[in-house]
Amino acid sequence: MNNNTLDLAKALIARRSLTPDDAGCQEILIERLEKIGFKIEKMRFGNVDNFWARRGSAAPLVCFAGHTDVVPSGPVENWHSDPFVPTIRDGMLFGRGAADMKTSLAAFITAIEAFVAEHPAHGGSIALLITSDEEGVAVDGTVKVVEALQARGEKMDYCIVGEPTCVTKLGDTLKNGRRGSLSGKLTVKGVQGHIAYPHLAKNPIHLAAPAIAELATTQWDTGNEYFPPTTWQISNIHGGTGASNVIPGTVEILFNFRFSTASTVDGLKAKVHAILDKHCLEYDLLWELSGKPFLTPKGDLVDAIASAIRQVTGLETELSTSGGTSDGRFIADLCPQVVELGPNNATIHKLNECVALADIEPLKEIYRLTLVNLLP
Amino acid sequence: MNNNTLDLAKALIARRSLTPDDAGCQEILIERLEKIGFKIEKMRFGNVDNFWARRGSAAPLVCFAGHTDVVPSGPVENWHSDPFVPTIRDGMLFGRGAADMKTSLAAFITAIEAFVAEHPAHGGSIALLITSDEEGVAVDGTVKVVEALQARGEKMDYCIVGEPTCVTKLGDTLKNGRRGSLSGKLTVKGVQGHIAYPHLAKNPIHLAAPAIAELATTQWDTGNEYFPPTTWQISNIHGGTGASNVIPGTVEILFNFRFSTASTVDGLKAKVHAILDKHCLEYDLLWELSGKPFLTPKGDLVDAIASAIRQVTGLETELSTSGGTSDGRFIADLCPQVVELGPNNATIHKLNECVALADIEPLKEIYRLTLVNLLP
Repeated sequence: MNNNTLDLAKALIARRSLTPDDAGCQEILIERLEKIGFKIEKMRFGNVDNFWARRGSAAPLVCFAGHTDVVPSGPVENWHSDPFVPTIRDGMLFGRGAADMKTSLAAFITAIEAFVAEHPAHGGSIALLITSDEEGVAVDGTVKVVEALQARGEKMDYCIVGEPTCVTKLGDTLKNGRRGSLSGKLTVKGVQGHIAYPHLAKNPIHLAAPAIAELATTQWDTGNEYFPPTTWQISNIHGGTGASNVIPGTVEILFNFRFSTASTVDGLKAKVHAILDKHCLEYDLLWELSGKPFLTPKGDLVDAIASAIRQVTGLETELSTSGGTSDGRFIADLCPQVVELGPNNATIHKLNECVALADIEPLKEIYRLTLVNLLP
Repeated sequence: MNNNTLDLAKALIARRSLTPDDAGCQEILIERLEKIGFKIEKMRFGNVDNFWARRGSAAPLVCFAGHTDVVPSGPVENWHSDPFVPTIRDGMLFGRGAADMKTSLAAFITAIEAFVAEHPAHGGSIALLITSDEEGVAVDGTVKVVEALQARGEKMDYCIVGEPTCVTKLGDTLKNGRRGSLSGKLTVKGVQGHIAYPHLAKNPIHLAAPAIAELATTQWDTGNEYFPPTTWQISNIHGGTGASNVIPGTVEILFNFRFSTASTVDGLKAKVHAILDKHCLEYDLLWELSGKPFLTPKGDLVDAIASAIRQVTGLETELSTSGGTSDGRFIADLCPQVVELGPNNATIHKLNECVALADIEPLKEIYRLTLVNLLP
């Protein structure tokens, strides 16, 4: 019984679940959950397998969320061992998905199994929300499941996402939020003309430059207790006909905000428009909100996990909101407290992805103790 | 004899001399020049036909310079008549090259013929410098002939380039100089990175923006009696990997100066470098001088042509240095006084290029009287 988290992680890594292909991983999880009384609801959207599993009908509901899909391995010949053959070497378990996030999935299951064995008549409910499209376009995955749950009025109190969050030691970092991502496609308009007759043209690159300079140095907010300040960056700028004697008619700029809960989407948009208008630019601007920020302030869930981490590892975990977006952004629409905790993230998406053998059972224990702390 | 400038212009237009193909135009001119005692020197460089013709060996030397090549016609079906079939309609001679510059070439010849007939033993010398690559890359044309003439110590005192210069009436505008053209390819360097972690990257677009803003608003000079102020314009800017979540490592900017004799090439370069350095940019900058400016202040040549214009048209001609570059820039290396005078330029390089029939003999007369005024 001691090694069963490892065994389950290996069984999952052996499935070649390249996003969005689940490759049978969810069946393995479902079989284990059914045995301990979970009601399973498969939710396939498009070509994406998802499922929702629940044990109990009372509040509070503690949900574990995660994904079975993995990113491509990259050149297999550059791996020390086959990325889809789980391999133990030097105290590590190697394989694509070892850290992101098949070991977390395995630890969810074994933690719940152990908890249910000890507390077969636990208070509240336990759920799992599992998708096979977190690493891909993430359109038919968690977001759709959340919409379906919301549509029927399902309530969720606490959610633990198994994303790899730790930096050097298991338990050192807990993500209690993520920044939002807001993109803009800006087209600044001028008047095309011959470069020898600039008085007959209006150079959109010249017109845009001072506005870009101001946008680049604007302080959007100062962040808050949990978030660093909002950042604004241009990813692409293109203007010009290719000809060296023509002033172009337009210049196109793609930019992106990573923003904290200290700013709002509407507030950021208004500030950008104000700067562009102040510089008297004629422009089109298309906005795209790819992720709202979410934040779980200190409270029941953070306390429950921080205490479990302290008990298992002796570490005082650090709260962090850094990094890119995750499925937490979708779950936050449904659930007031969402945190992310998983193994070390140093090797995720890289060659020779791995997790330390010594972290696997402790991760399960942290998840188990979190259930103990949250469920009456 | 009254129509022979028109006849010669028509004969030249009928030759399909798409740059750099002379298509036999120069043979027509040479035949006429040989008959009146010109010594002909053909100078073919690469696939470009050029010739140098001279009558007399004494100073001063008055040279007519021009080109037999024309730009492509564009869609023939959009012309009222075949661009290579000289056609008279509504008092105009239509055809590709009618204004730029086969009518000028015809008028050179008939003006010289008339002058030589009246003054067979004129003082000084008359020359023609004719190329078939002015509209193209202009590498094996006038610049090579000028180099050959310089190499053997040939001296030229006055040069009249037949480029179409007039705006509304024949004789209204004389170009006594052209601005120079200096281009730069600037690569501003940053550090590529993920847009979610801007503190680990350096965005070259953000870094470049204030420098661009300053360059765009810099007054390089105030021009002078003959030139408008120097202008600086960006033609192309490109930065970005295409991905919307990546801060690019570099941004590339192509820019161009059109500069007057109030600035120098080295002075402009130094000012650009000073601005880039002031903004602490890390960059590469490749310079290309595509044309030095030239200027012929008021003096013998300007006076001789202005007086001929006054006599023929009654107009006080205006001096201008506007527009793009011309072969005048090369000839100015050899000749202290270079001006450009030709027919109206409203239709050049366009569909239905044409010249007014009523301007053809007067143009010849202006050229003829200029010879009278300059040669003793």
